[in-house]
Amino acid sequence: MQTMQRTLIADTSKKIGEKVEISGWVDTKRDHGKITFIDVHDYTGTVQIVGAGEAIASLKPQYVVKVEGTVQKRPPQMVNKKIKTGEIEIKSHKLEVLAKSQELPFDMGAETLGLELPTLLDFRSLTLRHPKVKAIFKVQAKVLEGFRIAAQEIGCTEIVIPTIAVSATEGGAEVFKVDYYGRSAYLTQSPQLYKQMLIPVFERVFTVTKAYRAEPSVTTRHLSEVTQMDCEIGFVDFNDLLDLLEKVACQTIKYAESESKEDLDSLGHKKIAFGKIPRLTLREAQEIIKKEFKRDNTKEKDLTPQDETDLCRWAAGIHKSDFVTVTHFPTAAKPFYTEPDSENPKLSLSYDLLFRGVEVASGSQRINDYGELLASIKSRGMNPGDFEMYLMAFKYGMPPEGGFSFGAERITMNILGLSNIREASLFPRDMDRVDIRLSKVEKPK
Amino acid sequence: MQTMQRTLIADTSKKIGEKVEISGWVDTKRDHGKITFIDVHDYTGTVQIVGAGEAIASLKPQYVVKVEGTVQKRPPQMVNKKIKTGEIEIKSHKLEVLAKSQELPFDMGAETLGLELPTLLDFRSLTLRHPKVKAIFKVQAKVLEGFRIAAQEIGCTEIVIPTIAVSATEGGAEVFKVDYYGRSAYLTQSPQLYKQMLIPVFERVFTVTKAYRAEPSVTTRHLSEVTQMDCEIGFVDFNDLLDLLEKVACQTIKYAESESKEDLDSLGHKKIAFGKIPRLTLREAQEIIKKEFKRDNTKEKDLTPQDETDLCRWAAGIHKSDFVTVTHFPTAAKPFYTEPDSENPKLSLSYDLLFRGVEVASGSQRINDYGELLASIKSRGMNPGDFEMYLMAFKYGMPPEGGFSFGAERITMNILGLSNIREASLFPRDMDRVDIRLSKVEKPK
Repeated sequence: MQTMQRTLIADTSKKIGEKVEISGWVDTKRDHGKITFIDVHDYTGTVQIVGAGEAIASLKPQYVVKVEGTVQKRPPQMVNKKIKTGEIEIKSHKLEVLAKSQELPFDMGAETLGLELPTLLDFRSLTLRHPKVKAIFKVQAKVLEGFRIAAQEIGCTEIVIPTIAVSATEGGAEVFKVDYYGRSAYLTQSPQLYKQMLIPVFERVFTVTKAYRAEPSVTTRHLSEVTQMDCEIGFVDFNDLLDLLEKVACQTIKYAESESKEDLDSLGHKKIAFGKIPRLTLREAQEIIKKEFKRDNTKEKDLTPQDETDLCRWAAGIHKSDFVTVTHFPTAAKPFYTEPDSENPKLSLSYDLLFRGVEVASGSQRINDYGELLASIKSRGMNPGDFEMYLMAFKYGMPPEGGFSFGAERITMNILGLSNIREASLFPRDMDRVDIRLSKVEKPK
Repeated sequence: MQTMQRTLIADTSKKIGEKVEISGWVDTKRDHGKITFIDVHDYTGTVQIVGAGEAIASLKPQYVVKVEGTVQKRPPQMVNKKIKTGEIEIKSHKLEVLAKSQELPFDMGAETLGLELPTLLDFRSLTLRHPKVKAIFKVQAKVLEGFRIAAQEIGCTEIVIPTIAVSATEGGAEVFKVDYYGRSAYLTQSPQLYKQMLIPVFERVFTVTKAYRAEPSVTTRHLSEVTQMDCEIGFVDFNDLLDLLEKVACQTIKYAESESKEDLDSLGHKKIAFGKIPRLTLREAQEIIKKEFKRDNTKEKDLTPQDETDLCRWAAGIHKSDFVTVTHFPTAAKPFYTEPDSENPKLSLSYDLLFRGVEVASGSQRINDYGELLASIKSRGMNPGDFEMYLMAFKYGMPPEGGFSFGAERITMNILGLSNIREASLFPRDMDRVDIRLSKVEKPK
């Protein structure tokens, strides 16, 4: 059977007067007596189809169609400047329904879906198709790509990190247990230990990988399964690390912003401020909170969510920067591999990067001395025997090194100003949901 | 304290007569009476350091050092053509040990390590540093990058796939069970169902993600945790799919080959043959096995490992191709979402891509009709209720579509002719090992 070659919708504008075949999904339908207009989209754009008869009149939203027709100029008063093919339309000669859709549970043609989060997620397979939901993940794809480009530019080699381990990475109880051939194993909480082990191999490494946290609470900023974008770099000191952290962060986000212009515009994007990023120690940051926002948190070991919001507001005002780097968190509050500051070992060479009110990256200079690392593990009541392969890397020559880790969902969330991180995950996992609400399907064991 | 700027070793050749500071690991040491020569490498190259005195004489392999010295031309008879900096050496003025190494358990300076696989893996943190082991993963990094470039070129959007699910993806018992907040969940066996659900969102998608198989056996081609590189594409028929499969495969592997020339040369690479890829149905392939290799497997539902090896040998000879595409596997032997061939529904529109004797990719045209898919799930004794979110994508308009999946470790293994897939995984997981041998650490529950 002879069939026409498919024309992508983005290319139809160039084919005025020509016969084309397009394929896609029906967005909307407008009946004007005998004439019916439908909007059809594929992954390259949207086009108006005009036709008469029952076939086109019986189409419904989300139907998948193949249309053969002639591209024609629209009358001037009918031009739609909102879409790229707005100067043309396709006069349908032949229409084939490739797949039908059941009645939709809500209006997918609305400008925004306007659904509550649980409904947005209950119907994830459908709601993701809405242009404003889809746009979030087109931006996210550019965040991932931007990160990889930035990491490669600073000389990092891509590595693949395992996600099943026999000991909990950084201590703590918030790990998912896996039945591993009848033995206990865990899902890694971060690629941390593995990326460090690879410093003596590649010197500079990056990975985009999964990290798992069995957080027993539901917050707007936490997921049980997240996408981490990590770098680890040998032969660096603390200042090098801060420079590299800020360079990779800005380059990643700038790339996503510039490559996603259309999608961001459709979401009402507020341009990101890339002024010189202020670097504050935790204590300095807390002094600013005290002075500017009248809250005395100077005795706290970390910033509160409100502190993070306020600090970013302060930086945006004073420094024209949507970012703030905060350093020197208490050593005791950081993981065992964090290097203490030699000038005051109670504080550590650690840092968080805040972006638009939320921590999107963290990292530190690491302990690279084998003896010191062993002592740190023991001092926290952990068993060095659980870290055999990790410690081996330090036994045989580990240079001064450090690194950082970005949360891809958090960056996406904050570029777009989403109020809940679940909106920045295609299929978010938390204690209440794995696609469907867990309460719906299964009883606790 | 004023310190010099670090010079990367690759850049030292350009600095004859200049004072430089380099950092890296000691590879080898040669004592010539009062004079000592050491080779030091960083991530950009290797350079010879020459010096006198106890500091340099006391260095050992894998020590991490910082050396200040003057770049000088080597005497003509001392030029080493094997390394890029072979025309120069650095005369050491000042030497600092940044980290020591314990005595090595084997000779890391040997041309090849020559260790048995269990030892290679027992000392993974160390053995990965050997140039010929490291080179495997530099090639692998290019495989991943090459795949992403190829997938983007055919219009795919990158997606992030969850790895925790509440039902076993494709049926079967070989799944890892996770304790998910007191409920049962599973590690996904493939990104299959999720990438299909995203066809009505992006039309063409790709992902590089983890897949888990609780294979209860130890073979040379299987791992418990693998890296899959997947594409899924809407509005395609079977021939389009075969074209895209072969295009993405060849482009990925060509990219890795051309970008890793030096590493491949060091590993004695045999150039890959990219002749026109023969496409055979399973039956045709079995006829070739029967005729050319005198084994009658024409009643088997799949190719045996020996069949795969022989078919590739046949294709390399006749077609100058290191690849063979095999299609039309029995429907009953393929997952429920595989589209049967309308001309003979007992055979399916499925395919495997063989590369140098091993299956490195597989895929199929999928069932896109909601009713047909529901019937297929039921006919296999599975419960449609376990696929609620997946089926939703088909309820609301799914076009004809299909896709394929590459195993990153298998491709790496076969580009390099490794005899065991574990050598192509930085930290391989199988039923006997998670970094360390499981028998060493833990008793079965």
